[in-house]
Amino acid sequence: MINAVGREIPDELLKDGKEVYQGKFYMNGKYVKKDSPRTKRYETPQESKVCKNIREASEKCGAHDGMTFSFHSDFRNGDYVASMVAKVLVEDMGLKDLTIAATSLGSAQDLIADYITKGKIVGIQTSGVRGRIGEVVSAGKLKTPAIIRSHGGRPRAIEAGEVHIDIAFLAASSADCYGNAKGTGGKNNCGSLGFAVPDSHYADHVVVITDTLLDFPSLPATISSIDVDCVCVVNSVGDPAKIASLEARMTDNPRELMMAENVAGIIAATPYFKTGYSFQTGVGGPSLAVTRFLEKHMVEKNITMGFALGGMSSAICKLQDKGLVKQLLDTQDFDKGAIEHLAAHPDHHEICTSQYANPANKGAYVNKLDFVVLAALEIDTHFNVNVITGSDGVLRGAPGGHPDTAAGSKCCIIVTPLVRGRMATVCKDVVTVTTPGDCVDVLVTDYGIAVNPLRSDLMECLDKAGISYVTIESLQEKAYSLVGTPDDLEWEDQVIAIVEARDGTILDVVRRIKPLQLD
Amino acid sequence: MINAVGREIPDELLKDGKEVYQGKFYMNGKYVKKDSPRTKRYETPQESKVCKNIREASEKCGAHDGMTFSFHSDFRNGDYVASMVAKVLVEDMGLKDLTIAATSLGSAQDLIADYITKGKIVGIQTSGVRGRIGEVVSAGKLKTPAIIRSHGGRPRAIEAGEVHIDIAFLAASSADCYGNAKGTGGKNNCGSLGFAVPDSHYADHVVVITDTLLDFPSLPATISSIDVDCVCVVNSVGDPAKIASLEARMTDNPRELMMAENVAGIIAATPYFKTGYSFQTGVGGPSLAVTRFLEKHMVEKNITMGFALGGMSSAICKLQDKGLVKQLLDTQDFDKGAIEHLAAHPDHHEICTSQYANPANKGAYVNKLDFVVLAALEIDTHFNVNVITGSDGVLRGAPGGHPDTAAGSKCCIIVTPLVRGRMATVCKDVVTVTTPGDCVDVLVTDYGIAVNPLRSDLMECLDKAGISYVTIESLQEKAYSLVGTPDDLEWEDQVIAIVEARDGTILDVVRRIKPLQLD
Repeated sequence: MINAVGREIPDELLKDGKEVYQGKFYMNGKYVKKDSPRTKRYETPQESKVCKNIREASEKCGAHDGMTFSFHSDFRNGDYVASMVAKVLVEDMGLKDLTIAATSLGSAQDLIADYITKGKIVGIQTSGVRGRIGEVVSAGKLKTPAIIRSHGGRPRAIEAGEVHIDIAFLAASSADCYGNAKGTGGKNNCGSLGFAVPDSHYADHVVVITDTLLDFPSLPATISSIDVDCVCVVNSVGDPAKIASLEARMTDNPRELMMAENVAGIIAATPYFKTGYSFQTGVGGPSLAVTRFLEKHMVEKNITMGFALGGMSSAICKLQDKGLVKQLLDTQDFDKGAIEHLAAHPDHHEICTSQYANPANKGAYVNKLDFVVLAALEIDTHFNVNVITGSDGVLRGAPGGHPDTAAGSKCCIIVTPLVRGRMATVCKDVVTVTTPGDCVDVLVTDYGIAVNPLRSDLMECLDKAGISYVTIESLQEKAYSLVGTPDDLEWEDQVIAIVEARDGTILDVVRRIKPLQLD
Repeated sequence: MINAVGREIPDELLKDGKEVYQGKFYMNGKYVKKDSPRTKRYETPQESKVCKNIREASEKCGAHDGMTFSFHSDFRNGDYVASMVAKVLVEDMGLKDLTIAATSLGSAQDLIADYITKGKIVGIQTSGVRGRIGEVVSAGKLKTPAIIRSHGGRPRAIEAGEVHIDIAFLAASSADCYGNAKGTGGKNNCGSLGFAVPDSHYADHVVVITDTLLDFPSLPATISSIDVDCVCVVNSVGDPAKIASLEARMTDNPRELMMAENVAGIIAATPYFKTGYSFQTGVGGPSLAVTRFLEKHMVEKNITMGFALGGMSSAICKLQDKGLVKQLLDTQDFDKGAIEHLAAHPDHHEICTSQYANPANKGAYVNKLDFVVLAALEIDTHFNVNVITGSDGVLRGAPGGHPDTAAGSKCCIIVTPLVRGRMATVCKDVVTVTTPGDCVDVLVTDYGIAVNPLRSDLMECLDKAGISYVTIESLQEKAYSLVGTPDDLEWEDQVIAIVEARDGTILDVVRRIKPLQLD
């Protein structure tokens, strides 16, 4: 069946009520009966939940062949815990037919690629698919298609019972013996533990893994002891240098600076730019620079931000310290400065991914978002964005909060260079749709700006502000004129990944790329 | 069927797997599949959830005949919201066959007694049954037996699906337009909103009712906006004088002081009394005085408390301010000083009733409790306690956290005068069992101390400390010698209330008391 972004979704995937994508607010107002965990009762006095090792905790929680276990990714590229646990389950305990439900997977979990190749891990549900896992999944080694969800789509799927977690193994920077856990107060701090919270509420069993055991009761805690079965103390939960990178350097690339200045100018030209407005951006490329140019407009017009949302960097924390941002709503921390700021600033708040972006709860924070500035691997003339597959068809990205913030915000701006090397970023059809075009409002490139025809109101704003824009087709043509028309990729039939829209409908599938024929 | 506390439970109540009480840890280790709400999805940008009045909010949430709606009791005797909402549902909207699931009901809800009498409200599930509601329920006016649960038993029942809430109406001292709500920051503050949290998670619909609307986002919040459908702003959520009473006066009754001193002496004589120990007490009678005498022992022995649990009073807050208590874990606040202390002190933490006392989660704080000091209306020679029915058989009490802390703690001490007026507090058989005797360890009266024979270890501690004690039978005999043997109450067959043990089994039933015959 062809869905609302023109993608052919194989019929065999449309069972058990699964539907194809039908537009960004298709599920709005519909009711959902939530799933729930099956949990053990603890009535007697309890001294401690600390187990001697991960194996003991796994056995206490009934680890078994065919189970689904989960991890969170707030320790980012520095995470040791996912690999550590997978090794115990597969190598020490000899378990098989396992499914991993993670908030993201990347090079920190390269070991898991081996277990996929050996057929021990047969399913993956995740946002990010990077590193060796991306390669082996793309090569068709996983027994079932990977399911790729956004940061809001994941808690939605967990709450809907589409993924039921048998055991959640949750890394924590510190915890007490009863399981109260958080991302601060330890020797390896990640800051916000916002990715871990839905798992703690919906998994049948929860194991907290930490390297810093604090006195009971360690409060306030992000993970509550009432949701935790076991606590494991390990030597180290992660590599501090990779958990907490140093502050991202501000770009000095003149093209990136120009794009950032244009993004800030567009924001300032809309009616949403007024005191109390809300904003989200990332840390890559021109994003940090947007924050700097935005500051200029805010100071000039005497406007302050109500809240900044999503992943936090030092740049936005500094803006709060200057009094220009009232609240930070933080799902993850990108650098050391942001981690320390979360622990110190009373208006820097940790939120979980359900609060952040779940489209099936009673109002995620993305629904209150005015502006989001996002990157793209590709964007096509329908404004569909791809952030998951490279130009070679291999999985190497993550939707993250991209589709969620794009759908919820009043003004979603994609900022990307027109071409990258020999690749046209603006194209006729993206390899994989990860954010549907009906959620994307403006495209800013180094060769010009385009506005989604659905947003004539924004066109009027730009006209009034004297900001010129062109059609997205003209940008695509310019891109092709610079690097040539891209060759079509050649695919096998095998579906190796399903890209779910945030509401659970199917947005796209990724098929196995044909191996390069050397002749 | 006769249960483990010797009470005859009518067979017709034992359906759908309902069991009789079989001992305090009967359910330990058993699994429970939790219930979950059926909730509405909100995908589109949302400006505000504020409704023009309670009726509009009720209609948006699908209020209907036969539904179950809920309230919390953190506004205590000053609550306006329960009556206000019941009036709208019954009088304005004409609804009928309604069931109220409240954390407690008392004289602040006297209006609801009228709706029971008129047959509009047909079911009540609560902890406290006091005031006119107690009278009309005792007189058999409610169509179905009231179900009485402890503070831990209530979230257990909600999570088990034994009570499914259609709409929770949650009073809050302050809230933002999106539903982030708390018990501080308003014009009528109640402090902890710990009673409201389970309802916010498990009700299909949630309406926050406040008299103080704060700027969005108002964080940190006790009730999260992701659980809230509607916000109503009313003139006043309660009577400040009754929400936040002035600090309870320390008793100067020499008998009460003596009992308090004895309680503190017993605590100090046990091995649990060491740095890091935990403690809970109430505010009535000698309880505050216990805290004062305990302070003396702590200072003398250089011992500090790890945490105090439950409802908080100024007395325990002051102990924390002196550095004698590390953490306060607060489900409700008894006075103005405690409310202000919660907002100001970083180690004074709000916890919900599931964290506090739910026997079916993965470890409530009561399971980590060393000592609890509790009052009683009656205690019998099997150490069974009654805190719900008066000597006339009329409902006028509340189990509250009594059965939960008694079961979870290592040492549960009941402190009560031997007689009250013409009534023997220590008796052969309590009118109603609300805390089973297997949870009660020590009884302190003004005529002597008794230790539960199950606790020979505690007897040894008292022997070693030179604290004398007697059998509970001798205390009962002394009581009867003072006030005479009580006449048996005369009951009708009609069961007017079911007292559930905290694990959901049936502990006792209350039958309709025979109306007084005037001849």
